[in-house]
Amino acid sequence: MHPEERVGGSSLRLNERAAAIADAMVADAGALGVVVSTLENGARLIDCGVAAPGGLEAGRLLAEVCMGGAGRVSFTSVDLDGLRLPGVQVWTDHPAIACLASQYAGWAIKPEGYFAMGSGPLRALARVEHELFDRLGYAEPASGRGVLVLETRTAPDATLAAYVAAKAGLPPDRLTILVAPTATPAAGVQISARVVETALHKMLTLGFDVGSILTGFGTAPLAPIAKNDTRAIGRTNDCVLYGGSVHLTVRAEDEALQALVSRIPSSASRDYGTPFYDLFQRYGGDFYKVDPHLFSPAQVFLTNVKSGRTFQAGSVNAAVLRQSLFS
Amino acid sequence: MHPEERVGGSSLRLNERAAAIADAMVADAGALGVVVSTLENGARLIDCGVAAPGGLEAGRLLAEVCMGGAGRVSFTSVDLDGLRLPGVQVWTDHPAIACLASQYAGWAIKPEGYFAMGSGPLRALARVEHELFDRLGYAEPASGRGVLVLETRTAPDATLAAYVAAKAGLPPDRLTILVAPTATPAAGVQISARVVETALHKMLTLGFDVGSILTGFGTAPLAPIAKNDTRAIGRTNDCVLYGGSVHLTVRAEDEALQALVSRIPSSASRDYGTPFYDLFQRYGGDFYKVDPHLFSPAQVFLTNVKSGRTFQAGSVNAAVLRQSLFS
Amino acid sequence: MHPEERVGGSSLRLNERAAAIADAMVADAGALGVVVSTLENGARLIDCGVAAPGGLEAGRLLAEVCMGGAGRVSFTSVDLDGLRLPGVQVWTDHPAIACLASQYAGWAIKPEGYFAMGSGPLRALARVEHELFDRLGYAEPASGRGVLVLETRTAPDATLAAYVAAKAGLPPDRLTILVAPTATPAAGVQISARVVETALHKMLTLGFDVGSILTGFGTAPLAPIAKNDTRAIGRTNDCVLYGGSVHLTVRAEDEALQALVSRIPSSASRDYGTPFYDLFQRYGGDFYKVDPHLFSPAQVFLTNVKSGRTFQAGSVNAAVLRQSLFS
Repeated sequence: MHPEERVGGSSLRLNERAAAIADAMVADAGALGVVVSTLENGARLIDCGVAAPGGLEAGRLLAEVCMGGAGRVSFTSVDLDGLRLPGVQVWTDHPAIACLASQYAGWAIKPEGYFAMGSGPLRALARVEHELFDRLGYAEPASGRGVLVLETRTAPDATLAAYVAAKAGLPPDRLTILVAPTATPAAGVQISARVVETALHKMLTLGFDVGSILTGFGTAPLAPIAKNDTRAIGRTNDCVLYGGSVHLTVRAEDEALQALVSRIPSSASRDYGTPFYDLFQRYGGDFYKVDPHLFSPAQVFLTNVKSGRTFQAGSVNAAVLRQSLFS
Repeated sequence: MHPEERVGGSSLRLNERAAAIADAMVADAGALGVVVSTLENGARLIDCGVAAPGGLEAGRLLAEVCMGGAGRVSFTSVDLDGLRLPGVQVWTDHPAIACLASQYAGWAIKPEGYFAMGSGPLRALARVEHELFDRLGYAEPASGRGVLVLETRTAPDATLAAYVAAKAGLPPDRLTILVAPTATPAAGVQISARVVETALHKMLTLGFDVGSILTGFGTAPLAPIAKNDTRAIGRTNDCVLYGGSVHLTVRAEDEALQALVSRIPSSASRDYGTPFYDLFQRYGGDFYKVDPHLFSPAQVFLTNVKSGRTFQAGSVNAAVLRQSLFS
Repeated sequence: MHPEERVGGSSLRLNERAAAIADAMVADAGALGVVVSTLENGARLIDCGVAAPGGLEAGRLLAEVCMGGAGRVSFTSVDLDGLRLPGVQVWTDHPAIACLASQYAGWAIKPEGYFAMGSGPLRALARVEHELFDRLGYAEPASGRGVLVLETRTAPDATLAAYVAAKAGLPPDRLTILVAPTATPAAGVQISARVVETALHKMLTLGFDVGSILTGFGTAPLAPIAKNDTRAIGRTNDCVLYGGSVHLTVRAEDEALQALVSRIPSSASRDYGTPFYDLFQRYGGDFYKVDPHLFSPAQVFLTNVKSGRTFQAGSVNAAVLRQSLFS
């Protein structure tokens, strides 16, 4: 097994895979509650929650689009102190590529007068985050299509579509943008499905070679829809931070994993322990004052294929989760 | 978001969607254990349990047919006091349409000498239940095909097919009827998958505007097959009444939900607390003497998108469920 | 319902069904982490873990191939004393055929200088295990294709392919062989998905008419990948023996089930109670000294459609499972 193949492998074609899922969404738009439109320059917009109602199934597909079709998402139930809550489970056999080269909302899209964090496989064509992509060693092959996901209530226009298409080296009419505001069912699913991604990003931040992660499996509850997007940011984050559980298979040294594991879960952060919305308020609404180490699942299991040992840290925090989701 | 679009939207075409699922069942009849036949007038009959064995997967598809293809059903496990029981989960982004305009077995089909309650999207073409459909405000567009589901041990004949086809304005050869008796695996799945529907019907009965329900997610255990259909009616109902849990996203006023929520679950009924079969016996086998307010899930969560608050009532009753399923 | 149809029915065509799943794996090889090659004589080899990385989704499909496409496998979570572990659930409406005529690794393939136990639907064409197939009464119809699964680290060569193809009456170029070593993600999924099969095989051994089993549903946790295949045999077996739960619907006599049920689960074996790897060591690494009655799920539920009664025995053993998986 050559871990580098998993990260560097050119056979995945994340944008083609995501575009195929997007095409399926367009073909079933009515049932999915999404509204499809074409911008003046030919870019395709799939609204999953701005003017469209969206829904749970749209969110499930949106989450798979975010992962460039290199991970799967399905619904499940998650037990919270005896409460049976709706949840998602996500699994991927290309964790670094699916989660970090595609799903991670790491592209700060900021043409004149606009700001959004971009997710989805277009990031791997645009490579604006060149340091991250160099580190991942992933090169998305040239693609005839590109797919971007935005978690926003402001639907992008042709100017923005042209801007991101140019960054990715595509004509705008080869671009699909999917959009869902945080306080909607589709976004809720999409965000809880980031449970594995947050573990990988945290491990990357801690200096771990994420290319040595072979498989990822995670679960998280779904957030009840909040009354506005700011409140929804709180709840959806808390589903991962206090309710998410992730199992990773890695090829590494036991000593490294032993030293690493307790640093991964959200509980390793100085900001752990209060609902995210309250924390956000405490920092005066400045997202960048929140400890970045907070963004990680509640619980992490790392199984080392070299030793067969599993290293585990963190646990689901039902008290904070109840407070966040149900008060 | 316009809730009325969800209820009145004409893009769903429930009968076309259900017919596509039925076609897939026919194409894989052997593996699904269903037997397909054509009645003299050309109506297609898919037997999921009368002479055919049927099965779990046939039941899963049957349940999706019941919902007019506007909801999804998958298998899961449900914990009952530490027992890991097989169960179903169902989710829909068109709760009122999928559950009440299609899945609800509300059409009393009673030509001379026959009686059955019809389920499935043909109801939305026939509109015999005109008061319900007027209230839902749902108009199924004219369709080239129609699909009806009957939970009975008496397979329908050409006369019945002609009768229901005429009510729906279709020639009989454009009709598919699926049938499964209660005490079979397929019916068991199909009935537990009604867990969201029962919540919606109860809310409709209580005067709630079901068009304001945006998403539905529910789980219920599967009933072990009973020795006869009457016993099976008991067990399958109990899976919902004592084992079902439903999460709904709604757009409403908190005051209304606060006042409503405790009236929704089965526990709000005067007949709550004994296995359904025993209750049925107590009423001398007269189904219509049972309190209609009993038919609801054990537990209901209502999340209001206007306030972000969740209102919850009821709980799973493991004691009654164990008695019903395992004694 | 004619139980004999389930076992003897010729409509299933397990090899054709499995070949279709294998074709889908080939079409998505990159994402699945499988490597496809053609041997000199035209036989197709799908490597799911020898030189290829394989993965969870490859394992899920591999498990469905093992069952000849007559059963379904999906991911779920399994609770282990409050730990949320990744798991699989498997369901089939043709338990005897899917599990025993196909999934069971019962074909001792031993041409000069080679030994492996074969699984998958090719067994039903080769019928080397003629006593088993006579007892099952299942005749796979002549098929244009054949599919074999091997759990081994030694990829088969053209000679082996020619040997098994000849046994099945097929030219080698009509054969697909899938292979995954035990200590890999794909094999881990594939083995936990044997939870229903082990129950059926144990019941067969105990003299039960497995043709009277109408449906099967089972769950088992996934084993964390072990450091080598011998250790992996231990863990993956323990997932079934100490973590597996199976629900069967049968048509039988209550007295027979009452007498049978406590003999089915692994706890009925004299070798129950220590992790399988330790037991294996105790017997000096001689697999055939292990009590064959040990190979069965931790927990079994039998529901009799004739009486509606459910007979239950065994329970999940979290202590042994924790010891096996996490130490």
